[in-house]
Amino acid sequence: MRAVTIQADKSLLIQDRARPDAGDGEILIRVEAAGVNRADLLQRAGFYPAPPGASEILGLEVVGHVEAVGPGTTRFKIGDRVCALLPGGGYADFAVADEGSVLPVPDSLSAAEACCFPEAVFTVWANVFDRARLHPGEVFLCHGGTSGIGVIAVQMARLLGAESVFATAGTDEKCALAVTLGVDRAINYKSEDFVTVMGEAGGADVILDMVGGDYVARNIQACRPDGRIINIAYMNGFKTEVDFRPVLIKRLSLMATTLRARPIAEKRRLRDALEAKVWPFIMDGTLRPVLDSSFALSNVEAAHARMQSGQHSGKIVLLMGEG
Amino acid sequence: MRAVTIQADKSLLIQDRARPDAGDGEILIRVEAAGVNRADLLQRAGFYPAPPGASEILGLEVVGHVEAVGPGTTRFKIGDRVCALLPGGGYADFAVADEGSVLPVPDSLSAAEACCFPEAVFTVWANVFDRARLHPGEVFLCHGGTSGIGVIAVQMARLLGAESVFATAGTDEKCALAVTLGVDRAINYKSEDFVTVMGEAGGADVILDMVGGDYVARNIQACRPDGRIINIAYMNGFKTEVDFRPVLIKRLSLMATTLRARPIAEKRRLRDALEAKVWPFIMDGTLRPVLDSSFALSNVEAAHARMQSGQHSGKIVLLMGEG
Repeated sequence: MRAVTIQADKSLLIQDRARPDAGDGEILIRVEAAGVNRADLLQRAGFYPAPPGASEILGLEVVGHVEAVGPGTTRFKIGDRVCALLPGGGYADFAVADEGSVLPVPDSLSAAEACCFPEAVFTVWANVFDRARLHPGEVFLCHGGTSGIGVIAVQMARLLGAESVFATAGTDEKCALAVTLGVDRAINYKSEDFVTVMGEAGGADVILDMVGGDYVARNIQACRPDGRIINIAYMNGFKTEVDFRPVLIKRLSLMATTLRARPIAEKRRLRDALEAKVWPFIMDGTLRPVLDSSFALSNVEAAHARMQSGQHSGKIVLLMGEG
Repeated sequence: MRAVTIQADKSLLIQDRARPDAGDGEILIRVEAAGVNRADLLQRAGFYPAPPGASEILGLEVVGHVEAVGPGTTRFKIGDRVCALLPGGGYADFAVADEGSVLPVPDSLSAAEACCFPEAVFTVWANVFDRARLHPGEVFLCHGGTSGIGVIAVQMARLLGAESVFATAGTDEKCALAVTLGVDRAINYKSEDFVTVMGEAGGADVILDMVGGDYVARNIQACRPDGRIINIAYMNGFKTEVDFRPVLIKRLSLMATTLRARPIAEKRRLRDALEAKVWPFIMDGTLRPVLDSSFALSNVEAAHARMQSGQHSGKIVLLMGEG
């Protein structure tokens, strides 16, 4: 099968590799679409190595059909159309996933559309809802509101009862897109200060951030009492001075998590919870995929360049059937 | 009645003040003992002003008898022996408390002994259990393990099922005291590095800290994955550089809270929870008071000097009946 690996010089190589087998508790998926995530670019640059035991092939999520089921699996059968969260191995014609990281896909969606969901829904659920506990009636601020994660986060917050949803984005067009997804107030961070906007609104209960750097201090300012700030990345830098006085006075929590290195039992717990709470909105079409662009596997460099440019809105995917 | 207020020059004055009335939902307490807290020293120094509506008289907790009950109260009657958490007003012959911040006191304890509990139990419950969610089977590290808060925190962690309890203290004598309270491993921070000790033990799930400053980074090092660090003060400074890379990789939470400014409904919620989970251990004597020293109200300056010295182990209290 074809598979994308990282060369010593950081370039990508499409190699011929042996098809993986479905081990205990695993599902082998014939991949139709693989999601491109910013973490893939970090891994390629050497900053986000695959966890122990994970494939060194790039790719954290796929959509496809079940090709084989491993011993001890119970839920899926050969031919089922599924999507899956992976610790690696998605940029390939076949990928194996732990059964606890696999979910069904509605017939109404193309493979590329369905591929907008797995990593984003797991990430938003694990961070905004499971860890930061966004409750109905609370105020949510999502940075990167039109990123692949952002377009899902703002919809999930809206569907699960946030009182109001704010999002930042870098152009007026992206802000307009955010509003179509249910954002009450989109903030163009190039022309407006989100701290000021949130201050006028009374502050945020939960902030989802991937920027870091100077946003750490600004998020603290933008929170109301008992607020929770959850980071899934620190694109502007990990190291920053923090004044914990407002953290103490406002009783804030600064949290951060990644998904990839979590134990598979934990991913199964998250899968079960999000399948109950979020997946019905995907199956009935209420939670909309936002697809930026799709690329043939042979064009993987262009897909990465698109992600790197930051010009995208929504998800970038690789399609295995297109060469 | 007598009451202690702060003069413009930061000195304390024992004044004659009008006795407060029990308003709606309030209990008037004839005070026998008032706890001295580090927050009182901060308030005196101008760094921790009373929240809006709170008495400007010092004092965040008392033990005494119910003198009068306000309209709408249901639970306590005149003559009941009680303790209470207060937003202020404890250093006085009479104090009013919201009924939701009042708890019964066992007959077996002196007023000074009973005064070891209210602020400490509320603080430990609100932070270590309610906010940071220390679960049975987890590893707990308590800084200031022989402070008024620490002696309660380590016992509560032990009684509520922590797998192991670590504590830091500044002398071998304090470390020995911590061990008598159920600490598995006391760390003399003047001769040992707690990061090294915790690393050898596999890291902490929850750290209760009041030191701040360079401890922020060291606590991050001392945590295991999914760890929670909760600060109730930052005695060594609020501002510090933080490297969030290990926060992200280990999926940590950095949290801080104060108790005083929380709404009374929230304090009632905490009171109800800790009364169910912790108070039985106080009523049956399992959770032990650790009294450092008691001072007559007229000797309040000496009580503050004792707290400032840091030489105390356990609680410092003021006794109203002793002049």
